[in-house]
Amino acid sequence: MRIHPVILAGGRGERFWPLSRHARPKQLLPLVSEKTMVAETVDRLHGLADPGRAWILTAMDLRDAVRAAVPGVPAAQVVGEPTAKNTAPAIALAAWWLRGAGPDAVVAVLPSDHRIEPAERFRSDLKAAADLALAHRAIVTIGLKPTRPETGYGYIETGEPAAPGSPARRVAAFREKPDASTAERYVSGGRHLWNGGMFLFSPDVMLEELRAHAPEIAALLPRLPDGPSEEGSAAAVARFYEEAPSISIDYAVMERTSRALVLPATFAWDDLGSWAALAEAGDGDPSGNLARGETLLEDSSGVIAFSDQGLIATLGVKDLVIVRTGDVTLVCPRDRAQEVRTLVQRLKRDPRRAPYL
Amino acid sequence: MRIHPVILAGGRGERFWPLSRHARPKQLLPLVSEKTMVAETVDRLHGLADPGRAWILTAMDLRDAVRAAVPGVPAAQVVGEPTAKNTAPAIALAAWWLRGAGPDAVVAVLPSDHRIEPAERFRSDLKAAADLALAHRAIVTIGLKPTRPETGYGYIETGEPAAPGSPARRVAAFREKPDASTAERYVSGGRHLWNGGMFLFSPDVMLEELRAHAPEIAALLPRLPDGPSEEGSAAAVARFYEEAPSISIDYAVMERTSRALVLPATFAWDDLGSWAALAEAGDGDPSGNLARGETLLEDSSGVIAFSDQGLIATLGVKDLVIVRTGDVTLVCPRDRAQEVRTLVQRLKRDPRRAPYL
Repeated sequence: MRIHPVILAGGRGERFWPLSRHARPKQLLPLVSEKTMVAETVDRLHGLADPGRAWILTAMDLRDAVRAAVPGVPAAQVVGEPTAKNTAPAIALAAWWLRGAGPDAVVAVLPSDHRIEPAERFRSDLKAAADLALAHRAIVTIGLKPTRPETGYGYIETGEPAAPGSPARRVAAFREKPDASTAERYVSGGRHLWNGGMFLFSPDVMLEELRAHAPEIAALLPRLPDGPSEEGSAAAVARFYEEAPSISIDYAVMERTSRALVLPATFAWDDLGSWAALAEAGDGDPSGNLARGETLLEDSSGVIAFSDQGLIATLGVKDLVIVRTGDVTLVCPRDRAQEVRTLVQRLKRDPRRAPYL
Repeated sequence: MRIHPVILAGGRGERFWPLSRHARPKQLLPLVSEKTMVAETVDRLHGLADPGRAWILTAMDLRDAVRAAVPGVPAAQVVGEPTAKNTAPAIALAAWWLRGAGPDAVVAVLPSDHRIEPAERFRSDLKAAADLALAHRAIVTIGLKPTRPETGYGYIETGEPAAPGSPARRVAAFREKPDASTAERYVSGGRHLWNGGMFLFSPDVMLEELRAHAPEIAALLPRLPDGPSEEGSAAAVARFYEEAPSISIDYAVMERTSRALVLPATFAWDDLGSWAALAEAGDGDPSGNLARGETLLEDSSGVIAFSDQGLIATLGVKDLVIVRTGDVTLVCPRDRAQEVRTLVQRLKRDPRRAPYL
């Protein structure tokens, strides 16, 4: 068994504004350590999958920044997408290019901007999922035990065990973004797991399922060269992205295939949906402050202070998010951190303020 | 009658940190308009006293910055004090240099960092005080009607009218920083006014009173040359400041002289003791926000946002002071703005953080 990580790093998340910017989205930020999230993602695989085998799909204009962030990944394997077309085309492209990797090859599709701890547990789960993918010729997704009735996530309804005694289960159904009462039911019922966007499969299994359930994508693949370094590859990839529909792998394949298995994760996971999420994992000081960069937090508690440049000084404040960059300071209550996008929307309406985006 | 403004601009106030810095104290900040406070002070005299007749005493290391801020004041009349020795030596020096200005000359000692509105009222009060100073050969102070039981100010207890029908009164006593209940009594009693540090007098009257009540200062004056441009003046001034005691004019002269009169002001006054004071004068937006520089205050109220560089963006916050400079962001509740000095003290204890002072 040999894992080929395929890391999806095309996001443009605005929820970490003003640190995240159009040209420096979440995956390129050092949010949980001094390393960028995408570098954390590669490093987390240490011992399980060599960076030389990793592929990263990102937006064309972020390609150079991603290459710089993960120097261990061969530059040709950091592919710039000329248009954002959601996850299915990217995964199809990776499966196509890895189709000749041999019978023991397993693709591990991984998001680039989640917090995952500890790395050892993650690696052992990933290895177990890869083994399952080969043994069952399945597409194995890693399911996360829900800790709150989150309405913004997709849920996986688990079915029968994949085999007697196996912790893996068949997928009974995918349930996208439920309403609050349904989400409550999912969490208390114990049969649902969060979909964290991690998928493991043999390239040929994914290609078979794409042909069966997403023929409009599968039909485009044979026109592509055999790799990104082939002559004419850049133009062919551009044409592929132009013609491919914008669709998620969940919708294009996972909700339709009968070959989906889910393995419950044993690691802790957070998709870091906002500034507030950073502090919830709890590596704050005794007053519950989480500080990064130069800060002086006097008589303050529950403050998330992120300074990219210069000093953040507070006195007598509570439960605030304060972010300072070279050109912006953001201040909002922790419990409204997920509304930061509102500010980004306001800025977008004023062309003079484009430099702050 | 001819007024010679003597503006005291030696303060090192830390209450407007991080905008105020050691090298850029309050009088050099554009707090109430786009002009620095010291330039406002000079401009406020327009029509009453020409800038060419103004003198400014400031700290030696601030001298060039002050000269640049008030180009209308002759450079030689912006005097750098080599040591801070409180107000009495500075006023004595000005009286000495202006002693030959003629029988109609009146010195008007004025602080450089207060908010005073409207300027017309201020000028007519100043003119009336100058007339009184000449007519009574008195030292006339301008008294401010107290609006709150402030314990940090000096109070003037008023006595008999200076003359029948005159709004001016003899000074019964100066009362420094009373306790809270005494301050309450002063405010409700109606006989006390705030001491705003504005004094008008003939140079020779002040020199007489210095000889009588502060002979240790008066004795040093004859060793000084007749003006700042005389040969050897800089060295003589340095020696004067070295030898003079550090003492306020209130304590050295005003509390002891029998020639003090007080004229109640008809203008509005604020010494701008903290960030919070800026908003109390009330030129905020409908939500009570006071913004200077680039700001985006979404669903926020009672916010004082001062950006010197870059954007301050808030979402859902209330009654905060937020100040952004090129290298520091400060966040504190409005009602704790007067404690900003605590942060400055903390920074002083850490040599690595000296650049933020």
